[in-house]
Amino acid sequence: MTRLPVVVLGATGMVGQRMLSLLDGHPGLRVVGVGASARSVGRPLGEALTWRLPGRLPAAFADLPVLPCEPGAFDGQATLALSALDATPAGPIEAAFRAAGWWVVTNASPWRMDPGVPLVIPEVNPDHLSILDGAGPGGIVANPNCCAIPLAMVLAPLHRRWGVEAVITATWQAVSGAGYPGESAWDMVGNVHPHAGAEEQKLAVEPQKILGGPHAPAAFPISARCVRVPVADGHLLSAHIRLRGAPRPDEVAEALAGWTGEGPPLPSSPRPLIHLDPRRDRPQPRLDIDAGRGMALTVGRVEACPIFGVKLFVLGHNTIRGAAGAAIANAELLRATGRI
Amino acid sequence: MTRLPVVVLGATGMVGQRMLSLLDGHPGLRVVGVGASARSVGRPLGEALTWRLPGRLPAAFADLPVLPCEPGAFDGQATLALSALDATPAGPIEAAFRAAGWWVVTNASPWRMDPGVPLVIPEVNPDHLSILDGAGPGGIVANPNCCAIPLAMVLAPLHRRWGVEAVITATWQAVSGAGYPGESAWDMVGNVHPHAGAEEQKLAVEPQKILGGPHAPAAFPISARCVRVPVADGHLLSAHIRLRGAPRPDEVAEALAGWTGEGPPLPSSPRPLIHLDPRRDRPQPRLDIDAGRGMALTVGRVEACPIFGVKLFVLGHNTIRGAAGAAIANAELLRATGRI
Amino acid sequence: MTRLPVVVLGATGMVGQRMLSLLDGHPGLRVVGVGASARSVGRPLGEALTWRLPGRLPAAFADLPVLPCEPGAFDGQATLALSALDATPAGPIEAAFRAAGWWVVTNASPWRMDPGVPLVIPEVNPDHLSILDGAGPGGIVANPNCCAIPLAMVLAPLHRRWGVEAVITATWQAVSGAGYPGESAWDMVGNVHPHAGAEEQKLAVEPQKILGGPHAPAAFPISARCVRVPVADGHLLSAHIRLRGAPRPDEVAEALAGWTGEGPPLPSSPRPLIHLDPRRDRPQPRLDIDAGRGMALTVGRVEACPIFGVKLFVLGHNTIRGAAGAAIANAELLRATGRI
Amino acid sequence: MTRLPVVVLGATGMVGQRMLSLLDGHPGLRVVGVGASARSVGRPLGEALTWRLPGRLPAAFADLPVLPCEPGAFDGQATLALSALDATPAGPIEAAFRAAGWWVVTNASPWRMDPGVPLVIPEVNPDHLSILDGAGPGGIVANPNCCAIPLAMVLAPLHRRWGVEAVITATWQAVSGAGYPGESAWDMVGNVHPHAGAEEQKLAVEPQKILGGPHAPAAFPISARCVRVPVADGHLLSAHIRLRGAPRPDEVAEALAGWTGEGPPLPSSPRPLIHLDPRRDRPQPRLDIDAGRGMALTVGRVEACPIFGVKLFVLGHNTIRGAAGAAIANAELLRATGRI
Repeated sequence: MTRLPVVVLGATGMVGQRMLSLLDGHPGLRVVGVGASARSVGRPLGEALTWRLPGRLPAAFADLPVLPCEPGAFDGQATLALSALDATPAGPIEAAFRAAGWWVVTNASPWRMDPGVPLVIPEVNPDHLSILDGAGPGGIVANPNCCAIPLAMVLAPLHRRWGVEAVITATWQAVSGAGYPGESAWDMVGNVHPHAGAEEQKLAVEPQKILGGPHAPAAFPISARCVRVPVADGHLLSAHIRLRGAPRPDEVAEALAGWTGEGPPLPSSPRPLIHLDPRRDRPQPRLDIDAGRGMALTVGRVEACPIFGVKLFVLGHNTIRGAAGAAIANAELLRATGRI
Repeated sequence: MTRLPVVVLGATGMVGQRMLSLLDGHPGLRVVGVGASARSVGRPLGEALTWRLPGRLPAAFADLPVLPCEPGAFDGQATLALSALDATPAGPIEAAFRAAGWWVVTNASPWRMDPGVPLVIPEVNPDHLSILDGAGPGGIVANPNCCAIPLAMVLAPLHRRWGVEAVITATWQAVSGAGYPGESAWDMVGNVHPHAGAEEQKLAVEPQKILGGPHAPAAFPISARCVRVPVADGHLLSAHIRLRGAPRPDEVAEALAGWTGEGPPLPSSPRPLIHLDPRRDRPQPRLDIDAGRGMALTVGRVEACPIFGVKLFVLGHNTIRGAAGAAIANAELLRATGRI
Repeated sequence: MTRLPVVVLGATGMVGQRMLSLLDGHPGLRVVGVGASARSVGRPLGEALTWRLPGRLPAAFADLPVLPCEPGAFDGQATLALSALDATPAGPIEAAFRAAGWWVVTNASPWRMDPGVPLVIPEVNPDHLSILDGAGPGGIVANPNCCAIPLAMVLAPLHRRWGVEAVITATWQAVSGAGYPGESAWDMVGNVHPHAGAEEQKLAVEPQKILGGPHAPAAFPISARCVRVPVADGHLLSAHIRLRGAPRPDEVAEALAGWTGEGPPLPSSPRPLIHLDPRRDRPQPRLDIDAGRGMALTVGRVEACPIFGVKLFVLGHNTIRGAAGAAIANAELLRATGRI
Repeated sequence: MTRLPVVVLGATGMVGQRMLSLLDGHPGLRVVGVGASARSVGRPLGEALTWRLPGRLPAAFADLPVLPCEPGAFDGQATLALSALDATPAGPIEAAFRAAGWWVVTNASPWRMDPGVPLVIPEVNPDHLSILDGAGPGGIVANPNCCAIPLAMVLAPLHRRWGVEAVITATWQAVSGAGYPGESAWDMVGNVHPHAGAEEQKLAVEPQKILGGPHAPAAFPISARCVRVPVADGHLLSAHIRLRGAPRPDEVAEALAGWTGEGPPLPSSPRPLIHLDPRRDRPQPRLDIDAGRGMALTVGRVEACPIFGVKLFVLGHNTIRGAAGAAIANAELLRATGRI
């Protein structure tokens, strides 16, 4: 299989760096260009960015010149862009790429609830890509929020089998979810703080769009409390779940452990998708975050809830499964389904 | 008012040290003796303990000889013991003091659900002391769990006014709740972990005992997920609360802000009991934990929950309001109600 | 004593907020105006800032209108400004105030090594204010760097008595030293990092200016390694010190414990200035930072160094003794010496 | 090459678990038995331990029965023991194994300064094994302390080339260095603390034994200040180094980057041994600890020291390069040199 040329937008930020890490040596995608904001344009990527991840910028990308985030800058080099842009610039830039006939897989929030944009977890709702069929060439595919992804993934097999009726969730969210520099260390040293952003609102609507039909969101309510904690990577969530028919916790656990997802196999999609950990004090972010090279979830403590029937903990890597890896898997899906 | 002589059991541990801090210069209580485990007995307190709190052991207590935790050791010196003993030794030791006619206010868990032992937050259910009337001389009064106290306190005015029907709660709990040495630093550095102990079970039953009548616990269900976070002091909880009549969030907030508690005024009980903080990113443990010298709660983000009607965050100091200060306030209540 | 009117510049930042905290109820200084950057100007201070410290902005200051940082804006209200401005704007703004005849006590770095500006710790080198005599009206007085202050303070009594010949120092520095937002949480969660700024260079020159004569810096070399650690407040330093005559560690400890400083008594200057803590695992930032309400240092482990003769640890509160409180004490000194 | 059978003593602790992780699939060593304390004996290892590292206990070891730490228990199965025992039991147990003719590579401290026990970093002083020649069968080989290893490794090429005259060092040490449970979370949340143990004393003598001849320690003095910081894994050290001939920092950096070590190639010994990182804010423990799969050091900021000539930062993985991996590499060395 030839490797599909791809452009990374927002390459210098936290999620962009994760994308580059994951794309180094990727079997099906090949980075041919990188875009970033004006202050980086014109410099080799290796000089334009300060690498914030373990090790160093993969050598293969160090000499790529940083180009402006305009489709014209990458003319003829690719027709697929992975976007790690911040929410504010993402809207108009991604619209411009779409208008020029590109496929854009974006991690940014502006397009997520747009009815013309599929909000896709490739193992959950690959069929939502049909929203774009006939509308192209190209189109925008959105990643869900980094908390919405693990929540929707654990709800998926339960919703398919029993039907979700209500969810109350809480988060212990890592600081990398805010990008770089993101959270101030002053706020996070020996401290936690209630998330002052729109995280709770996103958790209240995105899973329903993902778990419903392409044009008909699921109807159950979600109520969330989101709190940032001094953890580098890894969002831990609790979920109290009311399911139709009130299955027992062991039935729920079995459904999660046995879940293989929908859609075609993808290079970035691990087996198993969900690690069910029976240990009482797991999952823990620092220890369990790399399951499935950051693309698997770990679920623990699936137990009876006296109010909703079942409750559990789920942990996911927020900048891999929840962002950079999610975008790459969506790109893989576009290709595996013959759209690109 | 003369200061009532009091003995501190378990004086060398984390909660015992907090008790000594709070009792230094207390207007109504005077420490006349300290008890600890065998390895400390016979030494002056100042040599027997390693002080783990800010500053140093109050000078007034440094020369107290550490005595064994037996009523005979303190014969004639006092009839009131504040116990910060660990759960395992607490049961038999406190029974022995009770059998010898002492009042024991204990922070340990073994007696909490005993029908013959009142589980008391002095501003919430002072009337529960009546359980002991006629049974003495003396008796055991139990402090609730350090998470159950802030949860029961925010539920109290809501339960009185509307009636609580169901609560789903999550915790971001400080490490001091586990005593010293308590949690391993390995588990808490850049990490959080699902609480492997009995915390969730305690939260499921203690508030109902507190909020019901002396002999009839309240009947609503509570479902909790408890997670330890790398915070020194201060338990943050979220609570999704279903109330009879479905009051609006602003009505709930008003009821909390205006709550003055039950029972007589006590030296350790602050005014207001609940600080309602309108800021979107508060309360935060490191910044807000000392409200009311650690005896007040801070409540924030009282908002609509699409499932239960209302949700909020509450923060309390777990070793003051949740343990040492709670015991002292209960001792103050015993005196203020003429029982001692 | 009437309270001297004072203006706080940079009132909305981390150090500005500390200044306001310390000035609330100050016996000798009264805040009559606050200045901040353009985006805050025109709003009441209570609305312009997000309070980052425990509790809330002192009520007395909430309604002060934020004015531009120009002397004309405060005309006739005061002749003393406490500046918590960032280094970049501080230079020209403080020059403008000086040119208008004001006294400026600044926490910013640009003026520190200017020979016409005294770099003052009031208990160490109050005589350096003589640099300004005859040059006014007004003048700029600079606070040293937040690490240089505790280092110079422990060196002061040793230099006076024996003479310092060389110092090798390391720091475990708190995140608040970088202001707000300052350090990224990503860099400080479960991590430490070598200080990438100019901290080591400042430590290499500021103590010598402080410990020398008004116009003749001391000549000994200092070599520093500075590392930021995930601590909220409190800089811990180790110092290996070579002293003339090679006094024993116990003699050094005695000199530190007995040190009472120079100059007149000041409201913010505590007694003792240095707490000598004999415990092997102290000082620790979280526990010992509030000694002397944040204005005293804690010294521990004064021991033999096989190379330099003596080594020790010293802890100081970096935003109180090392910044906001330092500025206030310098203002008190200006008044106590009759200059204002 | 057949895989040499090996027994792991202290298999359930933090370092023992690291050993098992590193030995899973090791090309030259095969775990045939595990020993631990009495409360684990008789149970399968998978039940006897609580796994504290990422992922799970390697499946290959789960069914090994835990045996008592006596040579008789492993009779005929192996003649090489890797010991991760705590210091107190290690002394007599390891002596018993030696008396029974075993080779013991120990991570414990009791034997390190024994003149009949080589203290070995295989890439630094493999020739010290000659201390044991003729004394066997078997013998004890000791790992240095987890701070002494990275310090001795950076000093090694400098001492060989120029001669070390004096070293002043400071540490920012990870909590895993204290084992499990080790440090209390209460002491390490938002805090650092001066190391109350014997770490500074070990740093003052072990590097000299390593860098000298088999029977003649090097003579230069080392003065250390050791501080524990809230980092999971990875000891960062600063070192101010006085070298004979006062080479320039760039010469020192070049000597470090080009250092290839002594002795035969070993499976666990990485190339390069030292990563020289030119970035101003590196090395950082959380980001750089896995260099060379935890067996390489990262050195940064090699700069001029006005007192000693050169100073630098060095980072090493304390439970891999500093403990478990060090023991395995020493076992590899025993085999590579034909001693076993």
